Amino acid sequence: MNAGDRVRVDRGTATYEGVLMPSTTAENLVVKLEGGYNVGIDRDEADVEVLEQDSYDIEEAQDTGGTSEITFEEELPTISLISTGGTIASTVDYRTGAVTAQFDAEDVLRAVPELAGRANYRGRVVANILSENMTPDVWVDLAEAVHEEIEQGADGVVVMHGTDTMQHTASALSFMLDTPVPVVFTGSQRSADRPSSDNVMNAVCAVEAAKADHSETVVCMHADESDDDCALHRGTRVRKNHTSRRDAFETVGAEPLGEVEWKTGEVSFNREPAARGADDLHLAEGLDRDVQHIKFVPGTPVDFLDIAEDASGLVIEGTGLGHVTTEWIPRIEELVENGTTVVMTSQCLEGRVCDRVYDTGRDLLDAGVVEAGDTLPETAYVKLMWALANVESVEETMRRSVAGELQERSVPWT
Amino acid sequence: MNAGDRVRVDRGTATYEGVLMPSTTAENLVVKLEGGYNVGIDRDEADVEVLEQDSYDIEEAQDTGGTSEITFEEELPTISLISTGGTIASTVDYRTGAVTAQFDAEDVLRAVPELAGRANYRGRVVANILSENMTPDVWVDLAEAVHEEIEQGADGVVVMHGTDTMQHTASALSFMLDTPVPVVFTGSQRSADRPSSDNVMNAVCAVEAAKADHSETVVCMHADESDDDCALHRGTRVRKNHTSRRDAFETVGAEPLGEVEWKTGEVSFNREPAARGADDLHLAEGLDRDVQHIKFVPGTPVDFLDIAEDASGLVIEGTGLGHVTTEWIPRIEELVENGTTVVMTSQCLEGRVCDRVYDTGRDLLDAGVVEAGDTLPETAYVKLMWALANVESVEETMRRSVAGELQERSVPWT
Repeated sequence: MNAGDRVRVDRGTATYEGVLMPSTTAENLVVKLEGGYNVGIDRDEADVEVLEQDSYDIEEAQDTGGTSEITFEEELPTISLISTGGTIASTVDYRTGAVTAQFDAEDVLRAVPELAGRANYRGRVVANILSENMTPDVWVDLAEAVHEEIEQGADGVVVMHGTDTMQHTASALSFMLDTPVPVVFTGSQRSADRPSSDNVMNAVCAVEAAKADHSETVVCMHADESDDDCALHRGTRVRKNHTSRRDAFETVGAEPLGEVEWKTGEVSFNREPAARGADDLHLAEGLDRDVQHIKFVPGTPVDFLDIAEDASGLVIEGTGLGHVTTEWIPRIEELVENGTTVVMTSQCLEGRVCDRVYDTGRDLLDAGVVEAGDTLPETAYVKLMWALANVESVEETMRRSVAGELQERSVPWT
Repeated sequence: MNAGDRVRVDRGTATYEGVLMPSTTAENLVVKLEGGYNVGIDRDEADVEVLEQDSYDIEEAQDTGGTSEITFEEELPTISLISTGGTIASTVDYRTGAVTAQFDAEDVLRAVPELAGRANYRGRVVANILSENMTPDVWVDLAEAVHEEIEQGADGVVVMHGTDTMQHTASALSFMLDTPVPVVFTGSQRSADRPSSDNVMNAVCAVEAAKADHSETVVCMHADESDDDCALHRGTRVRKNHTSRRDAFETVGAEPLGEVEWKTGEVSFNREPAARGADDLHLAEGLDRDVQHIKFVPGTPVDFLDIAEDASGLVIEGTGLGHVTTEWIPRIEELVENGTTVVMTSQCLEGRVCDRVYDTGRDLLDAGVVEAGDTLPETAYVKLMWALANVESVEETMRRSVAGELQERSVPWT
């Protein structure tokens, strides 16, 4: 009986058929079932029959980063752990000494033993990159992978991601995926070799959030400097607001959606979340990558806008209520007339843009600029890529909330 | 005796010689002294002699926006009120019905009568623009005007400015001007015709801050949603963090430098401010305008960097600890080799950049990028313009604090 053999295992009333994995030990058999689940079975309780020798190329399975699972208890929910890289994934590399992108459920459990017994896990690698190297192409790959995991029965998905651009990817999945189960992003601000590492608590809280009774796409990271709670931030409203603190992530302009208590794993909400099962699973067509994002500051020359020549879309981070220098307005009008959707947001980050108050704003509206309310600039950029590829009325869509990105309030002054 | 006549006025022991102004009334004479000061003198107490008829072209004086002052009481400090435009200045226009850039001390006192009796005022117009139209050229004009006002004896300067880019201008003056007296920026988030206007309280608190015992360049705006206090934010650490709230301005990563209590006008400090008179008055040579500011987001193409081809400087708002996609690094290296100073900041806004932790960062350092610590991106942009025009060792200067912009702390994690 060797790794790669096709086997049938009887354990009490249960029978498993699959491929024997190299992670099999003297005490435990590990069998990969059809669909990618790995079952761990106590040898003492197991009755094994080899159906076919050497049926499976283990190395190839590892190279392609197939799904994996260990432990399988009927009463536990199934959580898919998807790695995209970043500090939390390099943690795993550190502890296991692994040097490749290989990252399966067993690696995760070895790195974070506190996860054991909380769920049945499937592991999957979509990328192994630091998140500053994330691209819209990887967002699409990830959305497809999450869609597939949910289709195959995952009760929740945890995405391990570098923290630098986690907010962008969480936004992308918020728009691209209608999901009936939670999709929870987590990461690590400090790697496992640091005494203050946040990797264990963030991973455990993320799994608890993925098991909980909702279907939101959220970011789960330390809520404050203590180790009491992780916060759950809606993917479209979250921002990394500190370079190094463990509680760097904040919901802009509102309380976080909820919390996970570290000691108990209890998940609570500050606002009503979308209910588990409320949405049917649906994956968007893709993204229009031909969108640019620029920030205006005093002195920025008008030829800065050339980057958006012939582009599908342009998101501007304006000043205050959504302004740029008057000198830019004729050029913006040209872009709009040429077919570019130009969306205005504010570099203030908090509060809505409102281009009806001052002359500059009214001139921008006349030039055809679309106001994105209080949508964060980063979120508006991702949303515009999604809207251009997926909806008919892009301008109308940019003005209303699709995934919690725009908080409907009246103009906030009297 | 007519407006424009050159007159000598005796009042008790004091004698004033100057030009009779058209703002003279049945009760009060207003005389413009040499140097621009206007004196208001009770007619009952005054003995007037006409020295020369029609000596002064009043209209020309008004068109050129000369300085002005009303009330002159020896025991009060002299505060220079400089207008650059924005909502607080348009307020003044609204109340006086003025349609030109004309804005003198009398206009301000008519618009904000609560200022009377707190100081002797000089009024001066540097610009009349909404602050999204502010440019580095106007920063230089303003620095020269503030320098001149202080040279001519102002005990403090209040700059009235649009709120959108006040942080940039306050930074510019922080670097360009060594000042022995306070320079206080203020503005208005809501114009005087709105019931919740903040113009009166901000103007009064700014004057009190300009009279107080320090020599900081600060922004003075509502501290919270109440009308209790204005906060004093150091010009290099302040950011407009809300599009519409009256307390939109915040000191990033620290408490505000101080507060002004609205009811009492009392000024208090949370940290030791620079002492009044500690610095000699000095104006920098100018600014190098050939500096660009760009923000990196996932998907931003490498040709975005073309905007900085042959530029003196480039400030990048990177992700997290100061990263960009690996694809950008060779192009950044080319820019550096070509003589462009490339400075790295973080779009997180809070926390320091630190490019020694991850590969991306180390590659950026190897490419010649200069880390700006926790300097805000907007402040780094202004500082780089100043440094390139005024100091020998630009890189070393960008890494240390010149005007409170960089908070010296050890790397904030263990």
